[in-house]
Amino acid sequence: MAITRRHVLAGSVAMGVAAGGTAMAATRAGGSVERWGVHEIVLHGPASGNPFVDVEVAATYRRGDTEVEVPGFYDGDGVYRIRFSPPDLGRWTWTTRGNAPGLSEAKGAFDCVAPAKGNHGPVRVTDDGYHFVHADGTPFRQIGTTCYSWALQSEARCAETLATLAKAPFNKMRMCVFPNVASIATDPFVRTGAGLRDWDPARFDPAYFRRFEDRIRKLGALGIEADVILFQPYDAKRGYSDMTRADDERYLRYVAARWGAYRNLWWSMANEYDLIKTKTVADWDHLFQVLQAADPHDRLRSIHNIHVYYDNRKPWITHASIQNGAAVTGDIPAQLHRSFAGKAVIFDEVCYEGDIDARWGRLTGEQMVAAFWWGTIGGTYVGHSETFAAGRNADGSWLGQGGRLVGTSAPRLAFLRRVLEEGPRPGIEPIQTWWQYHMAGKPQEYYLHYFGDAQPNEWRVAIPGKPGEPLHRYRAEILDTWNMTVTPVEGEFAMAQAGAYDQQDPNRPTLALPGKPWLAVRLRRV
Amino acid sequence: MAITRRHVLAGSVAMGVAAGGTAMAATRAGGSVERWGVHEIVLHGPASGNPFVDVEVAATYRRGDTEVEVPGFYDGDGVYRIRFSPPDLGRWTWTTRGNAPGLSEAKGAFDCVAPAKGNHGPVRVTDDGYHFVHADGTPFRQIGTTCYSWALQSEARCAETLATLAKAPFNKMRMCVFPNVASIATDPFVRTGAGLRDWDPARFDPAYFRRFEDRIRKLGALGIEADVILFQPYDAKRGYSDMTRADDERYLRYVAARWGAYRNLWWSMANEYDLIKTKTVADWDHLFQVLQAADPHDRLRSIHNIHVYYDNRKPWITHASIQNGAAVTGDIPAQLHRSFAGKAVIFDEVCYEGDIDARWGRLTGEQMVAAFWWGTIGGTYVGHSETFAAGRNADGSWLGQGGRLVGTSAPRLAFLRRVLEEGPRPGIEPIQTWWQYHMAGKPQEYYLHYFGDAQPNEWRVAIPGKPGEPLHRYRAEILDTWNMTVTPVEGEFAMAQAGAYDQQDPNRPTLALPGKPWLAVRLRRV
Repeated sequence: MAITRRHVLAGSVAMGVAAGGTAMAATRAGGSVERWGVHEIVLHGPASGNPFVDVEVAATYRRGDTEVEVPGFYDGDGVYRIRFSPPDLGRWTWTTRGNAPGLSEAKGAFDCVAPAKGNHGPVRVTDDGYHFVHADGTPFRQIGTTCYSWALQSEARCAETLATLAKAPFNKMRMCVFPNVASIATDPFVRTGAGLRDWDPARFDPAYFRRFEDRIRKLGALGIEADVILFQPYDAKRGYSDMTRADDERYLRYVAARWGAYRNLWWSMANEYDLIKTKTVADWDHLFQVLQAADPHDRLRSIHNIHVYYDNRKPWITHASIQNGAAVTGDIPAQLHRSFAGKAVIFDEVCYEGDIDARWGRLTGEQMVAAFWWGTIGGTYVGHSETFAAGRNADGSWLGQGGRLVGTSAPRLAFLRRVLEEGPRPGIEPIQTWWQYHMAGKPQEYYLHYFGDAQPNEWRVAIPGKPGEPLHRYRAEILDTWNMTVTPVEGEFAMAQAGAYDQQDPNRPTLALPGKPWLAVRLRRV
Repeated sequence: MAITRRHVLAGSVAMGVAAGGTAMAATRAGGSVERWGVHEIVLHGPASGNPFVDVEVAATYRRGDTEVEVPGFYDGDGVYRIRFSPPDLGRWTWTTRGNAPGLSEAKGAFDCVAPAKGNHGPVRVTDDGYHFVHADGTPFRQIGTTCYSWALQSEARCAETLATLAKAPFNKMRMCVFPNVASIATDPFVRTGAGLRDWDPARFDPAYFRRFEDRIRKLGALGIEADVILFQPYDAKRGYSDMTRADDERYLRYVAARWGAYRNLWWSMANEYDLIKTKTVADWDHLFQVLQAADPHDRLRSIHNIHVYYDNRKPWITHASIQNGAAVTGDIPAQLHRSFAGKAVIFDEVCYEGDIDARWGRLTGEQMVAAFWWGTIGGTYVGHSETFAAGRNADGSWLGQGGRLVGTSAPRLAFLRRVLEEGPRPGIEPIQTWWQYHMAGKPQEYYLHYFGDAQPNEWRVAIPGKPGEPLHRYRAEILDTWNMTVTPVEGEFAMAQAGAYDQQDPNRPTLALPGKPWLAVRLRRV
């Protein structure tokens, strides 16, 4: 007994699920699913006992030589679901198996058709290892934000957050599965009593996870990646991040089966993992391996620190997720993270724009924006959030619950995003960072030099280049990263060799600048 | 047939070797070897064929439950040697074995006695992982220098280098086995013709290695660690670093057996490993494992980069050896290397004090010294060298051949060394680096704040401390790190809580400073 349906991340109509006891496949337009969309099999099986523990269900999807084993999950009320996101166009067939009546030997097929507009596929790390790209080749220039418990708020509050995001520059959202601030939804597990600790880790509450995946899909509809934080140290009273290993494994398998098919999903194993005292590094290593094995969609995986960096060279880590405000006060410390991790780096937490007393929540807008720029010049990516004291936002801060943005950085991050999107593919590469050029881009094509809080009235227009390397002509633009202006400079710079290390135009060695902070110069080859 | 003798690293008399066919043991004062000294067994075996390939010889040393397998090596003319540095006091017995006549079943015993003055034992990484300590517990505060090919120069030139070192602050010397500049000794392998490539990798020239170990011992007598660089990319014409894997393995086993017993020996697998195009990272991993297995003395192991950081988290790496001048332009980038490696960090190359055209060889003395100070405040260690153009030094630079020091940094590094030796054990720890205190030491005991090239006339005397943490009184001293003065400040600073993060004396919130560059303030608890 199987029913298929199709989630449409981009926001168009999803097919209804035909419930009941007859085998059927509900697909749109003759049984098609768009590439990187979601194909869902719905099965009916036992509702008694504890299906979360007792029942296993999975499907094998096949297309040509490709065969994908996809685990399913129990969604309550005797309903079992298997979700699969087809990576390739063409005819896919599927067969189910399970260890309970009604779950085995269901069969079906669908056509994977071209993706709808706006569906670029899941984000992957680029082949060079340091940037991000959608499956269709579209670069993903990460401009992240964090609202830890936004997804657990009221429908009205969630709608407000989504409306804010629709007009904001952010394309990745960090969000916790478990609540860390006051929330409407607080019970991922079935409650067994009135106390905060009275819940059964072996029984998920499907409604909680259904609500959460609704938020994941709505972010997807806005083109925003959902960087889902699986564990965090802020729910010690409830203890959701302090379960036993067996409970942790069951939880990871559940979310992997339930959410892994959403193409905008990223896994963040933990926030501030090193504050979770009930787990060791060996525990985290193990959990990563469990997650990796449980997720046939192989979504991005990272883990976020407070004091102690996790070893991001480990093979299950796709990119480094770093908390460190000092790392983005210049391009050199930012770039060093690439050198050490050997992977793409996102500074997911660099302190926040705000005015609370805590030192981690009182960056000026200028500092928040500069952190993004220094990270960019270091060849890395940065995350934003806001922590304005109560009253500036209706009910708690953007960091905790979402809602409205009241800071000054977001429009400037939109400006940065535009600069990135106009820049080289797949991203901005650091250029001889260790030699203090404070410059990035693509050698012999594109150079971005950032001045931070200096107030230069002149810049020596020199780019790195050794004798024998090609010499080109460049046009320059002055970018005011705070006032969001791009001012073209008249004429061109015709480079010649200048000493052993630089190229410079002997007739035009310098460029006048307006003597303000937060300037950048962009050089593009003519 | 066995003869034992004793190398005395500290420079006192070594016993003569009794050659000949009778079994005997020549030891000093009734058969004793000082702890961490060298016990040597001399055996006579075959001189025909190729003993470097054909013959294996080793000894088992025993003391109580301790049993150490020590490989030997062929030293030419039918002489085989086995060298062992006893780690523990007491009676040691030994038995040899080999695959040729004369090498097996020799036996003997000696007493390991208290070390002579100045013998602190080999250097190890501290239990916390970030500093260095001798086996007897004496902290080792690394102030390194580099003279790549000093050991391969004439006796007169070597004597000049050693005389310079005797008056210099350096306690570690980086030195290549294979020549990288003009040298007297150029042939570690037996020559087979007139061409640079005409040598037999399977036949070592014992005289070359005997000369090199004489330099290792002479450094030891000065209390200087020999950081021996096994491979390097600068001998491409001769190709010593481009041998086959089997030849590399034989070479590593030879130097491990020959030099591993010297307590001042460190292994640097390579200089600028990523410029050696004939070896991959997998090759380096393999060679480390070969070296580790071949070295029962388990000496320190590192590898030095140019562009691409080796993964210093790998288990055979004892400490990170880093080339990066930008990393020590502040304490934050320096400290990040600790965060990433999770190990002690030595910036073995940060550009050099000098005046040559190349950008890596023209630091001012002030820049060289500041690099050491920033590295110190970041909880790391730094290396020096000099690259003054020909004429300033008699024959090539200190970096290449040794000789004389002509720069201005060395006396200031002696001043730093004194500050370190007066500081907390085992070393200076970074203190909340990510929060921009630019301060290091030992919380609630000792604080060192460095100002770099700023010219402050006042400092806000605040140390990190949250409410509830102990409050103490401190005395302050102003250190002029360039003029090498320590100026005590009158009175004390009685700390009180100041806000959520700092401790400060409300009656004395600031300290007047002389408005010069290269200042530091030292606070010590009363």
